[in-house]
Amino acid sequence: MEKRLETEMHDTIPLVRALGLKVAQSKDGSVVFNAALTPNINDKGCAFGGSLASLLTLSCWSVLRAHTWAQQIPSDIFVHTSRIVYIAPIWADFTVHASLSSQALRLFTETLTAKGKAAAIIRAEVRAADGVAATIEARFVAKTPDSADRQ
Amino acid sequence: MEKRLETEMHDTIPLVRALGLKVAQSKDGSVVFNAALTPNINDKGCAFGGSLASLLTLSCWSVLRAHTWAQQIPSDIFVHTSRIVYIAPIWADFTVHASLSSQALRLFTETLTAKGKAAAIIRAEVRAADGVAATIEARFVAKTPDSADRQ
Repeated sequence: MEKRLETEMHDTIPLVRALGLKVAQSKDGSVVFNAALTPNINDKGCAFGGSLASLLTLSCWSVLRAHTWAQQIPSDIFVHTSRIVYIAPIWADFTVHASLSSQALRLFTETLTAKGKAAAIIRAEVRAADGVAATIEARFVAKTPDSADRQ
Repeated sequence: MEKRLETEMHDTIPLVRALGLKVAQSKDGSVVFNAALTPNINDKGCAFGGSLASLLTLSCWSVLRAHTWAQQIPSDIFVHTSRIVYIAPIWADFTVHASLSSQALRLFTETLTAKGKAAAIIRAEVRAADGVAATIEARFVAKTPDSADRQ
């Protein structure tokens, strides 16, 4: 699943190539990215907040994308709202960890299958040498191709 | 100021080159970016939420960066927290508009000069063909080089 997620993102989202992320792990309900500092540096020499926002958002999306693939539920998955807290500057390569409980994942899948639309709130964090450097809490919405409510 | 902001961002933040943004306008307290859809597209063919998060964050940073340049206050400016709402998918080129009231800008400048550190909450929005497509409310912190509290 790691390779499939990485290829899908690199092939369909041009910005992902600039972020230089690697999918280090994808298990049901969790995803880990490796990210290098160099392509994500800012004017102060530490990690750019916009890069962190992109990577955190993508990691949450990846949890739902990998799960809907595994469950064979064709769907589009959109971010709806997000709250990001930047805790400390990052001066080296870092990782991004997103996860959703199996209970929340099951509710998401059941609702998506039954109603053609479902939402989930996912949390992720950036980990650097000194610990957690940024967090996100994001609400995502998924819709199946036959949903009447597609945007 | 438009050219200076654009050059500074392109030269110091690699991801900005991938975002393909142009600084269309920079007045005191407001900044407008032009952004093309193509470099910011996602797997669904509309604008990638991570690109929007980056562009919205950068537009807010640019308001404070341009203002501290104009006021000749050397400082580093960091994003601290942000709340993003994604309202509608974007299927064409778009603009990003950030602004801060002159009163808030004056308070920010006075505090930064007096204490070596100041914060401001800035709002920005993405505008597409059908109106506002995404919004951010972000808190930024600025510090002068001689601040004792530098990270």
